[in-house]
Amino acid sequence: MSEARTRKGRNRRDGKSVTVAAPYVRRRIPTYNLLDEEALQIIEDNADTVLQETGVEFMEDMEVLDIFREAGADVKGTRVRFERGMLRKIIQASAPGQFTLHARNPAKSVIIGGGNTVFAPIYGAPFVHDLENGRRYATIEDFRNLVKLIYQLPYLHMSGGTVCEPTDIPVPKRHLDMVYSHIRFSDKAFMGSVTEGSRAEDSVQMAKILFGDSFVEEKCCLVNIINVNSPLTYDSTMLAALKVYARHGQGTIITPFILSGAMGPVSTAGTLTQMLAEALPGIALTQLIRPGAPVILGNFTSSMSMRSGAPTFGMPEPALALLAAGQLARRLGVPWRGGGSLTASKLPDAQALQESSDTLFPAMMGGVNLMMQSAGWLEGGLSVGLEKLILDADHLGMMARMSEGMDLSENGQAMDAIREVGPGKHCLGCAHTQANFKTAFYDPVTNDSNSFEQWQQDGSLDAAQRANRIWKRMLEEYQAPDLDPGIDEVLCAFMARRRQELPDSLV
Amino acid sequence: MSEARTRKGRNRRDGKSVTVAAPYVRRRIPTYNLLDEEALQIIEDNADTVLQETGVEFMEDMEVLDIFREAGADVKGTRVRFERGMLRKIIQASAPGQFTLHARNPAKSVIIGGGNTVFAPIYGAPFVHDLENGRRYATIEDFRNLVKLIYQLPYLHMSGGTVCEPTDIPVPKRHLDMVYSHIRFSDKAFMGSVTEGSRAEDSVQMAKILFGDSFVEEKCCLVNIINVNSPLTYDSTMLAALKVYARHGQGTIITPFILSGAMGPVSTAGTLTQMLAEALPGIALTQLIRPGAPVILGNFTSSMSMRSGAPTFGMPEPALALLAAGQLARRLGVPWRGGGSLTASKLPDAQALQESSDTLFPAMMGGVNLMMQSAGWLEGGLSVGLEKLILDADHLGMMARMSEGMDLSENGQAMDAIREVGPGKHCLGCAHTQANFKTAFYDPVTNDSNSFEQWQQDGSLDAAQRANRIWKRMLEEYQAPDLDPGIDEVLCAFMARRRQELPDSLV
Repeated sequence: MSEARTRKGRNRRDGKSVTVAAPYVRRRIPTYNLLDEEALQIIEDNADTVLQETGVEFMEDMEVLDIFREAGADVKGTRVRFERGMLRKIIQASAPGQFTLHARNPAKSVIIGGGNTVFAPIYGAPFVHDLENGRRYATIEDFRNLVKLIYQLPYLHMSGGTVCEPTDIPVPKRHLDMVYSHIRFSDKAFMGSVTEGSRAEDSVQMAKILFGDSFVEEKCCLVNIINVNSPLTYDSTMLAALKVYARHGQGTIITPFILSGAMGPVSTAGTLTQMLAEALPGIALTQLIRPGAPVILGNFTSSMSMRSGAPTFGMPEPALALLAAGQLARRLGVPWRGGGSLTASKLPDAQALQESSDTLFPAMMGGVNLMMQSAGWLEGGLSVGLEKLILDADHLGMMARMSEGMDLSENGQAMDAIREVGPGKHCLGCAHTQANFKTAFYDPVTNDSNSFEQWQQDGSLDAAQRANRIWKRMLEEYQAPDLDPGIDEVLCAFMARRRQELPDSLV
Repeated sequence: MSEARTRKGRNRRDGKSVTVAAPYVRRRIPTYNLLDEEALQIIEDNADTVLQETGVEFMEDMEVLDIFREAGADVKGTRVRFERGMLRKIIQASAPGQFTLHARNPAKSVIIGGGNTVFAPIYGAPFVHDLENGRRYATIEDFRNLVKLIYQLPYLHMSGGTVCEPTDIPVPKRHLDMVYSHIRFSDKAFMGSVTEGSRAEDSVQMAKILFGDSFVEEKCCLVNIINVNSPLTYDSTMLAALKVYARHGQGTIITPFILSGAMGPVSTAGTLTQMLAEALPGIALTQLIRPGAPVILGNFTSSMSMRSGAPTFGMPEPALALLAAGQLARRLGVPWRGGGSLTASKLPDAQALQESSDTLFPAMMGGVNLMMQSAGWLEGGLSVGLEKLILDADHLGMMARMSEGMDLSENGQAMDAIREVGPGKHCLGCAHTQANFKTAFYDPVTNDSNSFEQWQQDGSLDAAQRANRIWKRMLEEYQAPDLDPGIDEVLCAFMARRRQELPDSLV
């Protein structure tokens, strides 16, 4: 602990681990291809059929309808139909295959797309959960604490967006405090507000204060979730935010959120078809607004309990959808968002990690580029768990390590070790082990591999109890990254003005 | 529950699920290929180099040394060295790519190898753990209860072997009670004893009483774990058991057990090289004894904590080793044993399921044929957890479902559903959903996806507490499968005679 303390809390977890994390994961393992060419073409053709026959609703956004009409789509009222292949052509003409998302600390900028994976934390939970206090509405204090923890967790590559809903701040003003907290308490890349066009504009303005006007207009400093209102509908709120971010050249994650059987067909292939049919117009729209604007194909599909109607997570059918979604994104040529440490569990228990693992693992094997919701999820995303955050973040480290693949260098082959040791002996003390042991294995923070007796001496804690101790220690040890006081002053003045201008309630 | 009760407890879990399991998993998803041809050749070449230069010890078994000498190996004392490619040639001349392991209920016979996956339970735990009693030494009563539970768990395809160590029975007689319990309380396929040659013979004799002499001599009715005493050593106990089973045409699982950094090099590629070098002579030995004898390449490698020296499970490095081991087995042309629901956790907690998932998932993606230790593991295999058994068995159902792959039939494509529902509506009541919802999704037994309020009403239980209720109910509801009283009588007479002949202690 003492050595770690002197390192001032940057880019480490609890001082226990020697693992050093990169700013994002550069994958060196192949992607898993679940579907063959024929199956992928069936889904793409079916998506084209949906776009051609049924089309997509763009609710009450005349500007968007005009944009699509000008691009050659068939617009009737708010329903837009697209000729086969038209959207793919628009997208492939200008959408980047990968792009850099800039952090205020340049060493923490991330590349989204290609052979890279970026982990971002939970997004959107109205509740917060910890072992002592159980579940309660989240506040701005919780928000700040989460940002502080995420700042210190080396395998969370981004600070995120709505890491929880600060329910003690009026909805019309909430975005200001959220964006500011990311800037003030972290130096990792963050996300903007999407709950109204003007809040998206405020997010861009705050990014401009931080990065400079021309930097933001030229480079991607925000990525932002644009949810499709499945099935086959974009609403005016999301379209407004999409337009703001695309015009400013900021990143969008076009994400159909489909629970198979509810907002989409009860089959996996049908859900994927709808997902693609929904994502294509949104992705194309960003390119029609500003060719070259960073855009990501988001996939958030899960199953439901057909007994209760409740959403289920970590089940086998969404795992298959996940693997195939990655293939569809690569064929389209845009970065892919998918996966997460998803669970329906109310506690950081066995169910929570089983379900999280069974979403995380296929996402990694499928070559995910941006993983939102990768740490902290409980209860179908309604709750952010502090212990769950710590457990997940450790798990992400394991996934990062796995993605590095196998070392087949001469040192990795270790023939000298086998020769030196020979039959019946052990490798603990051999030269190869001595030279490599410090970095040979991922060094987990939350997992206990000690003997039963040692574990008893340590208090017989379960994983969640160990995680509880870790986040508390991390909050104690937190030290904020430096922020130019001039920038901070301008940010605070901007917020003060906007707080004056904005109402306290939505009515 | 009532409908399930009338089904007399066969092939179901707690009556809650409608899922019907097949006798084993027929995979319809591709295998993940981590390593390319060049990397695989490096490992195979290195294994050949180890076999040629260093060789393997066969401790004090003159018969085995003679067999290898006659086959052309270089035998000096107990050290045997092999020319490059020699063992692979022997194996590929006669070892079967897949074989049927017969259960006394023919509907529960399993095919090991090819595109199939068979799940077998935990093997070898001296302790048993449950929520009320904590951890204690296992007894024959625990053994019987485990067999009864495994009998009822549809995704455990085999009854297993030493599902726990019945420590209240003297070691020299223990195998009789274990084999008998599998026969008496289950009708699934089981495993024989390997702790002494004569105990292996007893196992074969009991199988002959059950299946008939000629049936056993002609068909595989037992598979048996032969552990290599890594590094590069076979001991006389394991060789004696190997010889008994191979002579009787029964299956062997040749399994190097390597903790990287302890019994093998601290690198993954080095560990794989040693694993292959160790497995090849054992596999070839079965074929030299009886060409065509069923044999499986077993892979049990894990990492260790370089701080404490404790074994670690579910870590990223063994996941990579697992994926590559499957490739090596397929190139050799023999079935592959790997994976398991492995964990170092002492409790059925978040750690336990994270580590289990991160072993289970790569094993499934890697195309595992026989998964030992697939349910019940705690504490590095020292303890079998009753709650963990239930949680894992449910998880296996999810893996089985995932392995079925995606339905791309016209019904699976669900275009009618998308056409019928259209934008902004929901699919819950559409014709496609009504026709498919009962079988659309895996229906978990232990996972709770209910709302927070419903979950509170149900007692705010965690997954382990729910599993605790399930195993208790299953034991209450257990009904033994029929066993021919004449066979039972002969088995009991055989055991009575052997109990007379065998000592009560090893000294």
